[in-house]
Amino acid sequence: MSEELKNSLIVNAGIEQPDNINNSAIQRFKNLKRPRLSVDDYINGIVEGNITILSKAITILESTLAQHIELSQQIIEKSLPHACKSIRIGITGVPGAGKSTLIEKLGKHITNQGHKLAVLAIDPSSQRSGGSILGDKTRMELLSVDPNAFIRPSPSCGTLGGVARKTREIIVLCEAAGFDVIFVETVGVGQSEIAVHSMVDFFMLLQISGAGDELQGIKRGIMEMADCIVITKADGNNIQKAETTKGQYINALHLLPPKESNQTPQVITVSAVENNKIDALWKIVIEYINFVKENYFFDNNRNTQAKYWMNQTINETLSNHFKNTISKQQIKDIETKVINGKMTSFQGATILLDKYFNLLRND
Amino acid sequence: MSEELKNSLIVNAGIEQPDNINNSAIQRFKNLKRPRLSVDDYINGIVEGNITILSKAITILESTLAQHIELSQQIIEKSLPHACKSIRIGITGVPGAGKSTLIEKLGKHITNQGHKLAVLAIDPSSQRSGGSILGDKTRMELLSVDPNAFIRPSPSCGTLGGVARKTREIIVLCEAAGFDVIFVETVGVGQSEIAVHSMVDFFMLLQISGAGDELQGIKRGIMEMADCIVITKADGNNIQKAETTKGQYINALHLLPPKESNQTPQVITVSAVENNKIDALWKIVIEYINFVKENYFFDNNRNTQAKYWMNQTINETLSNHFKNTISKQQIKDIETKVINGKMTSFQGATILLDKYFNLLRND
Repeated sequence: MSEELKNSLIVNAGIEQPDNINNSAIQRFKNLKRPRLSVDDYINGIVEGNITILSKAITILESTLAQHIELSQQIIEKSLPHACKSIRIGITGVPGAGKSTLIEKLGKHITNQGHKLAVLAIDPSSQRSGGSILGDKTRMELLSVDPNAFIRPSPSCGTLGGVARKTREIIVLCEAAGFDVIFVETVGVGQSEIAVHSMVDFFMLLQISGAGDELQGIKRGIMEMADCIVITKADGNNIQKAETTKGQYINALHLLPPKESNQTPQVITVSAVENNKIDALWKIVIEYINFVKENYFFDNNRNTQAKYWMNQTINETLSNHFKNTISKQQIKDIETKVINGKMTSFQGATILLDKYFNLLRND
Repeated sequence: MSEELKNSLIVNAGIEQPDNINNSAIQRFKNLKRPRLSVDDYINGIVEGNITILSKAITILESTLAQHIELSQQIIEKSLPHACKSIRIGITGVPGAGKSTLIEKLGKHITNQGHKLAVLAIDPSSQRSGGSILGDKTRMELLSVDPNAFIRPSPSCGTLGGVARKTREIIVLCEAAGFDVIFVETVGVGQSEIAVHSMVDFFMLLQISGAGDELQGIKRGIMEMADCIVITKADGNNIQKAETTKGQYINALHLLPPKESNQTPQVITVSAVENNKIDALWKIVIEYINFVKENYFFDNNRNTQAKYWMNQTINETLSNHFKNTISKQQIKDIETKVINGKMTSFQGATILLDKYFNLLRND
């Protein structure tokens, strides 16, 4: 199915077709549409590991149509008893850090061991096109045709909160479909790392060798979230440089406080191109998971994450509701007064909150 | 005025006195109470730099009585035109890092140059007693009797949000009273650093020499907020160790992303006891302030901070209102279902939000 048609399906299903879709596309769309699957059809298909049905379920999950939202929530609810049984791994690094190449090689290593791998992404900047990351499966040639791998680009829901929520729900569906290793990829330039970190069991930061010489634009705090720093492209003339970089990161990590997991972050140099140390990297992941399962951090962390996302959703909704109720101009006016020292931040907030609760009660 | 009486004044002003306050205390209390000062009396006193009136205004600000809240907001509003003209410096470090000693020596250095210095603190754990930091002025022997210095312990308002708000308001009053350098001290073990960092122009992290050998319990992300890392107690046998530590921090900072201020964080070793490099530390502060005033980061940052605190107050109030409206048990029940995989975080949040808005509309 073409990207264009898929987007139309999301946007237009059940609605009269716009003229600009060609006839064969409409025909294919109609074929896809009929017969409609029931919730149980979806669940059975997903639990059997049927990739076509899993993909359809995700497409429905990403739809903004009211009937799809209703349907997708039912699918998720019934998928939940089959979920939660995977290792979830976050992977970040700036563009050019070698994420696609590493995911391809590490992914193949994992599926070769009999695992089923789902590769997801969080990229709030992505629009209809599927965004800048994972949009191009050609960069994962082998993995994209591996029957034990499932690659899905980032949902495009505008806000990070929306994208993150969808991704968490997609994880549930993938787990129900038997994927026991989940990658969540993101780009190392923003708030999206915090979102990914809060939905995975293991967080991997990719850095290019030579990072000690030139800063790599990784946002503050990202290094401190990492369970493992992977120095990529450690091959050819780069090997010595990569080892030096490794030493620098080990020193830097040494200055950071101990992690809640009680596990010291590892630093490793790899060459995805030469398939070097990929097995060692996977061993680090497995040893970490075993360690935190034994000291109960694994379960505690997942519980903390579940509560975190519930609170996030609540607070974000409250904040959005406030912003949608009070006019932008009113907020702007008060902000200007606060910035110009005509009132304190607290006084400004009080005025706006009074307005808000009055409007709500008279609603 | 004794700490005990002050607390009674806050809690009991205008209310019948409890029996457990002795008669002379009641007499002093009555003397203090009369004559009542008007808002203009307070403003005139503050702007003249009258420390007694400034202290009284802060005490009223910290009171939770309705009439005091009203009065203090009027005082702050009228103080605002006289405020914002100081350098605000945050100082953090774990207990034992030498904060009091450094504040004493750096403070004297600053007042000797003709500046007026206010030393405030944020310690949300502090209760009636005034808390664990700055409670004991004997640790700042010279500064506490310096007519150009004003030391005030942390407000004790329970939540960090409450304490932070009061401290920001106290800064306004101190600035209106002519204090042109403000220190805000905090302990390096929690969220309070983020609060302090969001209300100062320059953020200083104190580390003991030897930090490279043993971790110092500084919370994640604190190091990345620092504009300057001060290695303390660089004297006697410690000098070499302090220099090594300095080198390690310089390397570590090198791996962090550039700061928004465009200024690289400085690392310096000092000995407060031997008064060594205190002048160099102050020079770092001054040079930083000049640099960020020139590149407009100083003003931009203050504006960002003002908006941040307004949003914080709004979001915290919305969140508290939600928690006070929905029963703890209801939240707990849903949380348990989310943790046990009976529903997603999003579904849990939706149920609670529906309840909340229904209750609000029927209020």
